Amino acid sequence: MSGIDRTRAERLMREAGLDALVLFQPEAFQYAIGAPAGVATMWGRAGAAIALVPTDAHLPLGAIVSDHAAAVMRHKAVDVDLRTHRIWIDTVDLLGVESVAGIDEAYRRTGVSGQRPETFDRAACFDLLSDMLKDKGLMGGRIGVDLECMPAADFEALKVSIPGIQWVDGSLVLRRLRAIKTPMEIDRLRRAAHAAEGGLESMMQAVRLDVPVAELSTAWKAGAQDAAQVGGFALSGHWDFISVGPNLSDGAARVTPGALIKADVGTLVEGYSSDGARTFTYGPTSQLGQDIFKALEAAFDAGLEQIKPGNAFGAVHDAMLRSMRRDGFGEYYRGHFGHSVGGNVGIEEWPFFSANNPELIEADMVVALEAPFYGQNFGALMIEDQFLVTRGGAECMNKLPRVLRDLSGDGG
Amino acid sequence: MSGIDRTRAERLMREAGLDALVLFQPEAFQYAIGAPAGVATMWGRAGAAIALVPTDAHLPLGAIVSDHAAAVMRHKAVDVDLRTHRIWIDTVDLLGVESVAGIDEAYRRTGVSGQRPETFDRAACFDLLSDMLKDKGLMGGRIGVDLECMPAADFEALKVSIPGIQWVDGSLVLRRLRAIKTPMEIDRLRRAAHAAEGGLESMMQAVRLDVPVAELSTAWKAGAQDAAQVGGFALSGHWDFISVGPNLSDGAARVTPGALIKADVGTLVEGYSSDGARTFTYGPTSQLGQDIFKALEAAFDAGLEQIKPGNAFGAVHDAMLRSMRRDGFGEYYRGHFGHSVGGNVGIEEWPFFSANNPELIEADMVVALEAPFYGQNFGALMIEDQFLVTRGGAECMNKLPRVLRDLSGDGG
Repeated sequence: MSGIDRTRAERLMREAGLDALVLFQPEAFQYAIGAPAGVATMWGRAGAAIALVPTDAHLPLGAIVSDHAAAVMRHKAVDVDLRTHRIWIDTVDLLGVESVAGIDEAYRRTGVSGQRPETFDRAACFDLLSDMLKDKGLMGGRIGVDLECMPAADFEALKVSIPGIQWVDGSLVLRRLRAIKTPMEIDRLRRAAHAAEGGLESMMQAVRLDVPVAELSTAWKAGAQDAAQVGGFALSGHWDFISVGPNLSDGAARVTPGALIKADVGTLVEGYSSDGARTFTYGPTSQLGQDIFKALEAAFDAGLEQIKPGNAFGAVHDAMLRSMRRDGFGEYYRGHFGHSVGGNVGIEEWPFFSANNPELIEADMVVALEAPFYGQNFGALMIEDQFLVTRGGAECMNKLPRVLRDLSGDGG
Repeated sequence: MSGIDRTRAERLMREAGLDALVLFQPEAFQYAIGAPAGVATMWGRAGAAIALVPTDAHLPLGAIVSDHAAAVMRHKAVDVDLRTHRIWIDTVDLLGVESVAGIDEAYRRTGVSGQRPETFDRAACFDLLSDMLKDKGLMGGRIGVDLECMPAADFEALKVSIPGIQWVDGSLVLRRLRAIKTPMEIDRLRRAAHAAEGGLESMMQAVRLDVPVAELSTAWKAGAQDAAQVGGFALSGHWDFISVGPNLSDGAARVTPGALIKADVGTLVEGYSSDGARTFTYGPTSQLGQDIFKALEAAFDAGLEQIKPGNAFGAVHDAMLRSMRRDGFGEYYRGHFGHSVGGNVGIEEWPFFSANNPELIEADMVVALEAPFYGQNFGALMIEDQFLVTRGGAECMNKLPRVLRDLSGDGG
C-alpha cells in the first residue's frame, strides 16, 4: 500500500507549483507505490524503477518496474498504472514442460523470448515514462524529481530524453510528505524501537569487568533479534555505536571500574530505523561524569517540553542549548539535538532539531530527541528517545528509564 | 592505503583528457584515499567527503573530510593533503579537566568552540575543494566527477560554486580503475568467497525433508560467520538468494522430494562482496532438471575457457550462449553471464559478460561467472564461481565441486 496521503500531497504539490512528482530513489519508490523497487536498482542508477505521483489526487499512481519485479507489484499495488521493461534476468514458465524440446515453445507461448539488456535499459525506461506522462496529460508540465538522490548522469539523460517537461527539484515536497507517518510506518518504528531496547537489556546483562566492546555489541544484537522474534516480526537491519571508557574511537576498549558506557543503537523493521541511546557506568563514575549527565537530563527535559504540534523544530534546539548554558556549558554546541526517523537512507531523517529551524512540528511525525556529550579522554554520555508527536504533545516509544545506571551490581 | 595505481590512473586520465578526478561517492572516497568517508555521508549527499586524484602521479592525493573523521584519516592516510570542515557533532578533549568549570577552557584551548551546521555545510566543503584545486594549479582544468553517483542537486550546486572548471563525467575512468584489483582487494574477495562457501557447507547440512527456506538461510549465515571467525576475519555484510522448489518467489517454500535448491550467496569483507552459487536436489530430480543442469555445466565451461587477458568480455557471453543453443535452448537468453566483483555499491560490478561487450579482460581483475536457469513452476538452477584473472587464464576462488548434488543421503 502506498504511504502517500494523496490529499495532503496534492496540497503540498500545488503550493510548490508542481503538476506531479517523479521519484527514482528505491526507498522513495517503495514509499510511494508500496512495493519493492526490485533488484535492478542495486547499482543506484536511476530509471530501473520509477514512481509517478500526479498532483491531482483523482489520477492513479504510476509505476515503471522491471518484468522481474512485476508479479510482486501486481499483487501489492493493484490500483497502480503499471508499465514494465525487460532486465537481464531470463525467467520462463515451465508449467507442463517435460523435456528440453518443450522449453522454446514455453518461451514463445508466454511472450518472454528475445534479447535482454546487459543490466537494464535506461532509455527504454525513460520512453515508458514519457508515454505515461503523455497519457496522463502531464506533458509540458512542471514536474518535481528527487534530485537530492538521482545521479547527475541520469538526470542529464532524462532531460535529453523527455525535453517537453520543466524538470525541477521536488526533494523538499518529498521530504515534507515523508515526515508525516502513516499508521503502518508508526507501527514499524514502534517495533524497531522495542527490539532495540530488548538489545539494550541484553547488553546490560553482558557488562562485566574487562568485557570488550565487541562483546557488548554482540549481546546487543542477540537481544534485539530475540525481542523481534518474541514480538513476531523480523529485523531488516541493525546498527550500533557503543563506546566504552575514555578513548571514544577505541574499538578494542574493555570495561574498567568507573567507565562510562554509551550505547547509541537502532534496529530496522521493513527498512524503518529506530534511534535511541542510554549511558551506563560500571561502578561509581566521577563527579564530573555525574554533573555532565545531570546537565544532559535537564537539557533533554527542556527540549521534550517543546515537542508539540505548532512549535518550530528550532524551538527545541533553542531550549536545549539554553539549558546547557544555564548549567555552565558556555562553549558546548550541537548542530542538532535530534531529527525525524523513518524509512529513508541514513539513520537520521529530515527535519532536524537545529538552530533557528522554522519547520513546524506536526502530529504523526516520529522524532528522536538526543542530548549527547562526547569527551575525548573522558567518555561519551547520551540520552536519546523516540517520540510519536500527538495532538497534545509527544508519546515516548521507549520504556527504559532515562538515568545514568550503574551496572556493577547487575552482572556476575 | 589508497587502492589507486597512480601510474595507471595517470595513463587512463590522460587518455580521457582529464586533469584530475574528484570523487564524492563514499565507496569511491574509501577506495581512493584508503580511509572511511565518515558518518556525515550517511544521507547520500555529496560534499561531506571529497577525494581529489590529480592526473599527474607526482602530485599528492587530496581529501576533504569532517573534523569528526580527521583523526582516523591522519592515521590511515598520512601522505594525503587533508582539509577539514565542521559537522554537527561536538567533541572536546577533556584531558586533565576535573569539573564543569574547566570544560569551556578545554573547548577554547583545543580550538573546537563555535557553532556547527545542522548536518554538514556543503558550501564550506566546496570552498575547501576550490582552494585545493587552486593550490594544485588545477583551476581552469577539465575534471572528471563520479556523476553516476553524485546527486544531481549537488552537482548543480558544485557548478555554481566552482565555475572555473570544466566539469565532465569521470565515471568510466573510475570504473576502469576499480576493475583491476590490488593485492589487498584480491585478499578481501578471496576471504569473502571462502566464508560464503563455509556458509554453503553449513546450509547443505541443514537440508532435510520439510525444512523451510528461512532455515536454510539461517544455516547459511551461521556457517559463513563461523568460517570467517575461524579464518580470523570479520564480515562487514552478507546476502543470500536461496530458492527451494518450483515457485521461485515463495519465501515460505519447504524442501520436498526431488526439489531443486538454488543458493546464490555472498559475504562482504571490508565492503568487498563475493558472489557464487550452487544447486542441490533433495532426492533424484527430474530428467529435465538433469538435462538443464548439464547444459549449464557445458555453457559454464565454454565461458570459462574464454576468461583470459586480451579477450573481450563479450567473447564469454558469446561462447556461453552458443553452448546453450547447441544444447537445444533456442530462446534462452541472459543479459549477462557474470561480472566483475568488488567493493562498490551493488553486488555486481562493471564490466559484465554481456553480448558484444568490447571491454578487455585484464590480469588482476576478479570476476564472477554465472550460468543460471530460472524456471517458474519448475525450479531454479545456477552455477557461479569467482575467478582471479591471471596472466595465463583464471584462478578459481571456490572449492566446492560444480555438480548438481543430491543431499538426501547427507542429512539426518
